[in-house]
Amino acid sequence: MQTTTSKNSTTKTHHLPNGMTIVAEPMAGKRAAAWAFLVPSGAATEPEGREGLTSVLEGLCYRGAGARDSRELSDALDDLGIERGGGSDTEYTTFGGATLGDYLPAALNLYADIMRHPRLPEDEWEAQRELALQSLASLEDAPARKMFVQLRRVYFPNIYGRSPMGTLEGLTALTLDDLRADHAARFRPQGTILALAGNVDFDATVCQIEELFKDWHGAPPAAGVPAAVTEAVYQHIAQDTSQQQIGVAYAGVPSTHEHFYDYRVATAVLSGGMGARLFTEVREKRGLVYSVSASASGLRGCGFSLAYAGTTPERSQETLDVLLGELRRMAEGVTEAEVERAKIGMLSSLVMQEESSRARAAAIARDQFVLGRVRPLDEITAAVSAVTPASIAAYYEQLPPRDFTVVTLGPKELQAAS
Amino acid sequence: MQTTTSKNSTTKTHHLPNGMTIVAEPMAGKRAAAWAFLVPSGAATEPEGREGLTSVLEGLCYRGAGARDSRELSDALDDLGIERGGGSDTEYTTFGGATLGDYLPAALNLYADIMRHPRLPEDEWEAQRELALQSLASLEDAPARKMFVQLRRVYFPNIYGRSPMGTLEGLTALTLDDLRADHAARFRPQGTILALAGNVDFDATVCQIEELFKDWHGAPPAAGVPAAVTEAVYQHIAQDTSQQQIGVAYAGVPSTHEHFYDYRVATAVLSGGMGARLFTEVREKRGLVYSVSASASGLRGCGFSLAYAGTTPERSQETLDVLLGELRRMAEGVTEAEVERAKIGMLSSLVMQEESSRARAAAIARDQFVLGRVRPLDEITAAVSAVTPASIAAYYEQLPPRDFTVVTLGPKELQAAS
Repeated sequence: MQTTTSKNSTTKTHHLPNGMTIVAEPMAGKRAAAWAFLVPSGAATEPEGREGLTSVLEGLCYRGAGARDSRELSDALDDLGIERGGGSDTEYTTFGGATLGDYLPAALNLYADIMRHPRLPEDEWEAQRELALQSLASLEDAPARKMFVQLRRVYFPNIYGRSPMGTLEGLTALTLDDLRADHAARFRPQGTILALAGNVDFDATVCQIEELFKDWHGAPPAAGVPAAVTEAVYQHIAQDTSQQQIGVAYAGVPSTHEHFYDYRVATAVLSGGMGARLFTEVREKRGLVYSVSASASGLRGCGFSLAYAGTTPERSQETLDVLLGELRRMAEGVTEAEVERAKIGMLSSLVMQEESSRARAAAIARDQFVLGRVRPLDEITAAVSAVTPASIAAYYEQLPPRDFTVVTLGPKELQAAS
Repeated sequence: MQTTTSKNSTTKTHHLPNGMTIVAEPMAGKRAAAWAFLVPSGAATEPEGREGLTSVLEGLCYRGAGARDSRELSDALDDLGIERGGGSDTEYTTFGGATLGDYLPAALNLYADIMRHPRLPEDEWEAQRELALQSLASLEDAPARKMFVQLRRVYFPNIYGRSPMGTLEGLTALTLDDLRADHAARFRPQGTILALAGNVDFDATVCQIEELFKDWHGAPPAAGVPAAVTEAVYQHIAQDTSQQQIGVAYAGVPSTHEHFYDYRVATAVLSGGMGARLFTEVREKRGLVYSVSASASGLRGCGFSLAYAGTTPERSQETLDVLLGELRRMAEGVTEAEVERAKIGMLSSLVMQEESSRARAAAIARDQFVLGRVRPLDEITAAVSAVTPASIAAYYEQLPPRDFTVVTLGPKELQAAS
């Protein structure tokens, strides 16, 4: 058990003997506090044939826990003015929230029950599954989201391609026994993170958490390493929609990589500000799309890019061609002015992210999960500032943009030459 | 010309001779600054037959202004790390953004050009219209949004029912001359508001704005008063979707009304926290819907409620019945515990909203527009705290929930008994 304070920031870290870690950024002048309990067990480690279990379980955890039934728990959360956050993800499940700092200790008591002692009641779990089934069915009316779910499946042809929404088969097969057994096996403290930001008394929180979780033991099952496809793939989902959805996935680098910040700044050159390449080349000049963007995404040990365009069926082939052309053209080099603009935008966003306790709690939870530590903001600032056109060129030399996984959804099948 | 500082808060106000008002909340310890220029001229006052003009105009204003062409303006905004905000609304158009406080003066110089001296270039306006047309067409793939656009049209059967997205006819008829004439006639300083929050030097900003806008004169056309339908209406949009969308609009009260805070707290009892009535009665107990909510909305001088449910076609009639039943049941009274919980949730949200410069700039711009002044946070806190079950009962006695405007979209036409 140890507490450390980072030299360069106000981040405080404390390790519990059972494998939990507390990371906190107390912020002066804030009245609100935000927290995120991250259990390192998400959709990727669901039992085969029970896809969607984690999201049903996460919802069910709030339907009564410890001494409180469903109604009493909802009322207790509302009595503390808690805005609930979190949810199930591929790699982990988070139980998050925010409220006034004064209510934080009482809120953490409730959340300890929610994670450790949910009642998983017989008479409510089917309503929770019903909601998950409806949520899945609603994808049919949300073409962009449906396309992204499929893009993910195609790009990661293994457990990391799973959607936290699950599948019709998995949700239908689910039983209450599955949920109870799974909660007992997978919701374990080893690797669990509690991230806090805002109006937080760190020492008092450490004492409270040690007391609440000291008799919790064990580790969740390991999930293996994410592996993406390494060759070009094209898949079309024929659907009678008004607009055509275009999604592209391709390799990036994880936050542990020497070229990580080159990758991030390059992505901002492509899709950061108003003058970014995709915005000007695809949207403004040609009026091809109502929406176009690219972003850097990642799993632990694996970085990847996602690009998106929404357009009319008639313009969709040209849009895809121009989009892939712009992605490839990044390897031909970026200008000094583009890099400087991208850096300013990223640093400005970083400062604005700092304003929000919730955004900061989520960011430090993720840092701790992915890197095993929280990057101080001045470390990020220095790394972003050091990026140059030459370092970006070196990145693209190592990892040229190619082998695109393309998924389209709409009335028109396209040619996706890679 | 006068500058006033509110007794109870840090809000500062300054009136310019041309009718513009500057309202600011400088916040200690913030590095970011956010602003919103609110021009009191939105979709409601578009020329007949040119619906959608304002949103095309707003986008076009960023395509070159003053000494800068489109590319130079985008680069200049990116050089300052500006995250652009704002857009066109029914009552007004906002030009907003956020960046580091150090860049604020340079940003305001650019925004003065964008609003006053947009180039409205011949060779770019059709691409901007094309984007607006695509955005409108994308509604066909977004059933919930499409339903809300129609609900608004039915509830306000006049210019206030217009969607800022416009109509196919209006956008198609549009010419560059329309845009130029409209900009000259409607973008005028009388009633224009500049709201600022965060890292702002108020006195310096006042000097700068006076210089930038001193030779701008005139008033936009008046828009008349919003008037909603006063009897029950049901309209169904038959569409082959997977889920059924249900929207309800009904009367509320504006922020000038003596019962305004009773109305807001009552809405939170209905749809605030996890134990709120709609959430427990419609979603949790019965598993009827994947999404259900109610919210208080408003125009200047007019308050109204919007309720929403998304569900399967099979459950849609029961969902609508339960939803309308819960809306009506509010008039039978709320408990002390419900009111206390709703108040805690609202006050907690208020504190969290304070964290964000952008949210605060938008809120004070809207207060100034609707009320002609900014409500200090402690005034809101005191008013919310004073609400009781008895004062809510008095509100519902004056304005019982009835005469619902119901719009459904999906495969099934329903019975909407009112």
